[in-house]
Amino acid sequence: MTAFKDLSLEAIRQRVSDFAKERDWEQFHSPRNLLLAVISEIGEVAEIVRWLGDDDPAIPPERQEDWEDELADVLILLIRLADRSGVDLSSAFEHKFKKVEAKYPKDKFYGSNKKYNE
Amino acid sequence: MTAFKDLSLEAIRQRVSDFAKERDWEQFHSPRNLLLAVISEIGEVAEIVRWLGDDDPAIPPERQEDWEDELADVLILLIRLADRSGVDLSSAFEHKFKKVEAKYPKDKFYGSNKKYNE
Amino acid sequence: MTAFKDLSLEAIRQRVSDFAKERDWEQFHSPRNLLLAVISEIGEVAEIVRWLGDDDPAIPPERQEDWEDELADVLILLIRLADRSGVDLSSAFEHKFKKVEAKYPKDKFYGSNKKYNE
Amino acid sequence: MTAFKDLSLEAIRQRVSDFAKERDWEQFHSPRNLLLAVISEIGEVAEIVRWLGDDDPAIPPERQEDWEDELADVLILLIRLADRSGVDLSSAFEHKFKKVEAKYPKDKFYGSNKKYNE
Repeated sequence: MTAFKDLSLEAIRQRVSDFAKERDWEQFHSPRNLLLAVISEIGEVAEIVRWLGDDDPAIPPERQEDWEDELADVLILLIRLADRSGVDLSSAFEHKFKKVEAKYPKDKFYGSNKKYNE
Repeated sequence: MTAFKDLSLEAIRQRVSDFAKERDWEQFHSPRNLLLAVISEIGEVAEIVRWLGDDDPAIPPERQEDWEDELADVLILLIRLADRSGVDLSSAFEHKFKKVEAKYPKDKFYGSNKKYNE
Repeated sequence: MTAFKDLSLEAIRQRVSDFAKERDWEQFHSPRNLLLAVISEIGEVAEIVRWLGDDDPAIPPERQEDWEDELADVLILLIRLADRSGVDLSSAFEHKFKKVEAKYPKDKFYGSNKKYNE
Repeated sequence: MTAFKDLSLEAIRQRVSDFAKERDWEQFHSPRNLLLAVISEIGEVAEIVRWLGDDDPAIPPERQEDWEDELADVLILLIRLADRSGVDLSSAFEHKFKKVEAKYPKDKFYGSNKKYNE
């Protein structure tokens, strides 16, 4: 739908890592802490759309900036979580997405959400 | 800690978008559906480390591949969620991270998690 | 809608506490572990309804038992989490619900989800 | 640890149901909306303990009231979610807990978190 501006996962990882180092915050960034932080931010995302039915516009216009900020927060913490648990998230994506493509061949799953429900 | 392989957010967005289009799955990818899917995958991440104390190794070695796969799943769905709600996630990151840097100046927040708790 | 069978929060707390004691599992039941376990189970709940639009039946009939089991799991772990963090969940409910009633007077919030969105 | 004050799940269900009816809020209380609301509140719980290591006190004293309020919010919304999806949460507990007891016999799982990890 929208093309994203050019930016690599690694560039984000590096900036977030530098940010934490400069503040001596590495001590707080254990995988479990970061996971709880991800969940906290996901909760903020959910807060924005929880009372909206499917007929409402997806995101209330007056909450658009909040929505973007919260998605960014989840991304930042997810990348930090991968980094702090020794995961190369780019390679993890490549690896996982190949599995997904193999699991859902186009012809067998065209237009069907059957797969979702077993 | 670990450098990520070079890969852009946009490359992932494009691949996931093509994948959905080829299967006619766009009909299932409303923002709220994708958000619930993100949460479902975050739950899988939490499942791996829920019973481990801080003294245990962060990730049990026999769950390492699951861990990487689940983090990748969260990333895929988060990028898809941004895409389907009209958010350029790269720009959202730039915008939000500037706010974060302004909010936590190095000298005032060095080594302190005070900020975390109010 | 459906009346619940008579059962107190305390009865559940006691049974879950005994269950853990008999298996010497108290060592695993720190508040943060239990919180991650709650999140893991909430993820299972989300998994059941993530791809369903609002026009679909709320819960797919073939997933009804899973749905009930997962809600029960969340309840069990939530009560255990309260117990292990020294919270009397019954009193916490009374206390909080009074605040909610004061915050949303009937006449001012009748039929309005305005309140939800600021 | 702490005994809970006597209060039944049904009493809470009834009060929350009356509260919604008096405000004509039933229209907002679809299962998926309530699930997103539960997740939003779980995020608030996570926010309180996310940066604390296992050596810190479980809950910061100055956040104790928030902690209790947030746990209560999760309970309220969980009970409402069960009610609005036609689930008798008391019976669901009985049903599920019997399965759990059968799955983890005392003698086989004494002191072991092995079970947790497969």
